[in-house]
Amino acid sequence: MSHETSYHMSPEEFRRWGHAMVDWIAGYQQRVETLPVLSQVKPGDIRASLPAAAPERGEPFSDILADVDRIILPGITHWQSPNFYAFFPSNTSGPSILGEMLSAGLGVQGMLWATSPACTELETHVLDWLVDLLGLPAKFKSNTAGGGVIQDAASSAVLATLLAARERATNFQSNERGADGRLVAYVSTQTHSSVEKAVKIVGLGRQNLRQIEVDEHFALRPDALARQIEADRRAGLTPCFAVATIGTTSSNALDPLPEIGRICRENKIWFHVDGAMAGTAGLCPEFRHMQNGLELADSYAFNPHKWMFTNFDCDCCYVADRAALIKTLSILPEYLRNQATESGAVIDYRDWHVQLGRRFRALKLWFVIRHYGAEGLRHHIRRHVQLAQEFAGWIAADAQFELAAPAPLNLVCFRHRGGDDVNRQLLERLNRSGALYLTHTLLGGRYTLRFCVGQTHTEARHVAQAWHRICATAAEISTAPAKAT
Amino acid sequence: MSHETSYHMSPEEFRRWGHAMVDWIAGYQQRVETLPVLSQVKPGDIRASLPAAAPERGEPFSDILADVDRIILPGITHWQSPNFYAFFPSNTSGPSILGEMLSAGLGVQGMLWATSPACTELETHVLDWLVDLLGLPAKFKSNTAGGGVIQDAASSAVLATLLAARERATNFQSNERGADGRLVAYVSTQTHSSVEKAVKIVGLGRQNLRQIEVDEHFALRPDALARQIEADRRAGLTPCFAVATIGTTSSNALDPLPEIGRICRENKIWFHVDGAMAGTAGLCPEFRHMQNGLELADSYAFNPHKWMFTNFDCDCCYVADRAALIKTLSILPEYLRNQATESGAVIDYRDWHVQLGRRFRALKLWFVIRHYGAEGLRHHIRRHVQLAQEFAGWIAADAQFELAAPAPLNLVCFRHRGGDDVNRQLLERLNRSGALYLTHTLLGGRYTLRFCVGQTHTEARHVAQAWHRICATAAEISTAPAKAT
Repeated sequence: MSHETSYHMSPEEFRRWGHAMVDWIAGYQQRVETLPVLSQVKPGDIRASLPAAAPERGEPFSDILADVDRIILPGITHWQSPNFYAFFPSNTSGPSILGEMLSAGLGVQGMLWATSPACTELETHVLDWLVDLLGLPAKFKSNTAGGGVIQDAASSAVLATLLAARERATNFQSNERGADGRLVAYVSTQTHSSVEKAVKIVGLGRQNLRQIEVDEHFALRPDALARQIEADRRAGLTPCFAVATIGTTSSNALDPLPEIGRICRENKIWFHVDGAMAGTAGLCPEFRHMQNGLELADSYAFNPHKWMFTNFDCDCCYVADRAALIKTLSILPEYLRNQATESGAVIDYRDWHVQLGRRFRALKLWFVIRHYGAEGLRHHIRRHVQLAQEFAGWIAADAQFELAAPAPLNLVCFRHRGGDDVNRQLLERLNRSGALYLTHTLLGGRYTLRFCVGQTHTEARHVAQAWHRICATAAEISTAPAKAT
Repeated sequence: MSHETSYHMSPEEFRRWGHAMVDWIAGYQQRVETLPVLSQVKPGDIRASLPAAAPERGEPFSDILADVDRIILPGITHWQSPNFYAFFPSNTSGPSILGEMLSAGLGVQGMLWATSPACTELETHVLDWLVDLLGLPAKFKSNTAGGGVIQDAASSAVLATLLAARERATNFQSNERGADGRLVAYVSTQTHSSVEKAVKIVGLGRQNLRQIEVDEHFALRPDALARQIEADRRAGLTPCFAVATIGTTSSNALDPLPEIGRICRENKIWFHVDGAMAGTAGLCPEFRHMQNGLELADSYAFNPHKWMFTNFDCDCCYVADRAALIKTLSILPEYLRNQATESGAVIDYRDWHVQLGRRFRALKLWFVIRHYGAEGLRHHIRRHVQLAQEFAGWIAADAQFELAAPAPLNLVCFRHRGGDDVNRQLLERLNRSGALYLTHTLLGGRYTLRFCVGQTHTEARHVAQAWHRICATAAEISTAPAKAT
């Protein structure tokens, strides 16, 4: 068709190398469990393998693909290994990867409805589906005053909702006049650090973030929250935002939403609920007790990119009053004006988050839900919880270990009874072995190991292997003289 | 390997459907120029084709792929059509799509160096490469006090740098005490709306954003900036942040960086330069004059996801003082602590932006640079500029049209001499035809059409076709009685 000089990859070449890349990924899926989970490279190793300057001439794609194996792969910590139990998972699946491929292939930028109506409408639609799938309050559906949007991460969701809260509390004047130094936000000592980050970003100031104490199960104490709000009011401050968590990062603690929600209602505080990882369990009716009280929330976010087989990034953020969010974040320069926007008949998601540009992320979510069906999703979530519960049972039954917190779902917090140093050594040796990867936290000031079952392909045999490795490594440490590891 | 019930897509199925998806994308690349560029659907059309509830049972992938053609494709505005001249481009390329595929397949989350060292080190390395490729100041390289990071969008880059500016101006006290109502930021009347959005977000307040007037070429007037700063100082305010643009969104105006930079230096103002689209032209030495003065900048961002054949999202954000950025955004809860971080020998990019989680976006950039080589990238950028200049020549030579602004690179702003209504009709008819897509702006209060040449596959024949269509449509309008369109 063209006689112009071109360095572009032709559709034929793309077909060839695309097939090769798909095969590479399929092969990776098949062998990933044989690779050391935590990358074993040292700082600087990867860079030392890369040429100091970019190439002047283009290189064959075969060379690039070979370097993926030679240079990149040793520097990967394998989040998609079934032996990955660290942090919270960031799992994925075949249909999700296919959805991401299609999104990249279409290459649309969905900042406005008009810039790809399907990008906006599929997103609205799938987020409505999820309200039903998860048993969320109907007020988060798009046919009410509320609605959902895909954000990249829970950090962005909490930032957007805190901004809306800030504006609502100041009659939408902070955008114009600057932040009001009297606004106060509330979290527990266990709430994710992204809230502190957001509080700093929006100009509330960390000194106006109250970290409310937790009970013996690491859940926020509503009585302490109510007392603090009262004290702040007496001091002339304005409580404006509170976050409760369904499944805290450290221990999967479940904050008491009904009590917190009632307190927020009484005090006109924007109530945000963070279900980043555990929220996916709402697919199964037997776990929905954790969502009790969500009907009192002003906003809710959970991440299909953690536990719902949808690759990062995909955070579903719901608000009960979309007008507050849009009024807070809306910008309409002339070059974005268009008939559809001005008709008022469409959603322009650029007004629902910080960024202007946006990828077509609903595709992967749509692919995942359709491939698995509600039935398939529930099956795997139940299985993960079951595996974690079995693991928790082994911990509880072994005299040298103890559970460090309740394990309501798929995260088990535990420790060896030998004290912090033993647990530190245990973690370090386990991770260095490459056989599995887990991370730690502090609970009640004590060093605690976290074991989270949520990787797509984790099965009973992996969890059993992990347990045997943990026991064997603990035995090594107990019989060896203490030394620096 | 397993006897557990599974709803997962097997590696064999993934291989099969992955190949099908690659073929679909290759076929799309081949036929995209035959499709109407701007989607012709009406609000609600896409949703009306989707079932009201998610499926209970999983569906065959063949059905899903069929629905992509049946339901999704009509709702796509084809950003990857060579007939796309709207907004700024968001182009892509074969190697970029392959990089995005690999990123999804590996599924790593690079919040910390330890969570995939290659994700961090390749990013640092490729961003250093780009400093040389673009002829940027060496102070943006990682072996200095500065460095680069990939943000999702220029909006996020300006938010992060404004936050660092806010903290530096308040001795890093705003994070703790809340935003200081005396801080002032400076832009021109032509600066992208993301700065106003960021100013609101961080609590400066829109009333503390100064929109400085521009000259006859729509470039910021340094004399007016200096006067405003002086006036603000006299009023007891604290100038803290200024943005200059290399290639404004409306007209690709080039702000005078040396003068603005000197004023910022004298006044201890954080100087951010936004080269979101035009920055890619720095690949070619003959266009680097636009970067003169960048050595005075505290930060710089440009988007390979606009014009550098790298699919959205990929914004390269450079700072001269990374410590200021990290100190502003750093959070270190116990569950993220690890040996590599505490050694101080590594970069943890989570401290360089709002989000905690991050994809492996450096892969696509690495693939693009290696596939094209510097030579190939320069070739296509030059060609786009050349095509735009030819188009500008046709406008200038045609008595019924006029250029509305200088066209230094690949954006041509023009208008029919028949007045705003004619231009409005012209835009509407052209876009409705599906043959091409362009957007408008206001320059000097007058309705202006924007024609931006930056889509990967736009060639001379497409631009010539566009010009013929524009002339023919203008003739239709001129000969028809005026009517509502």
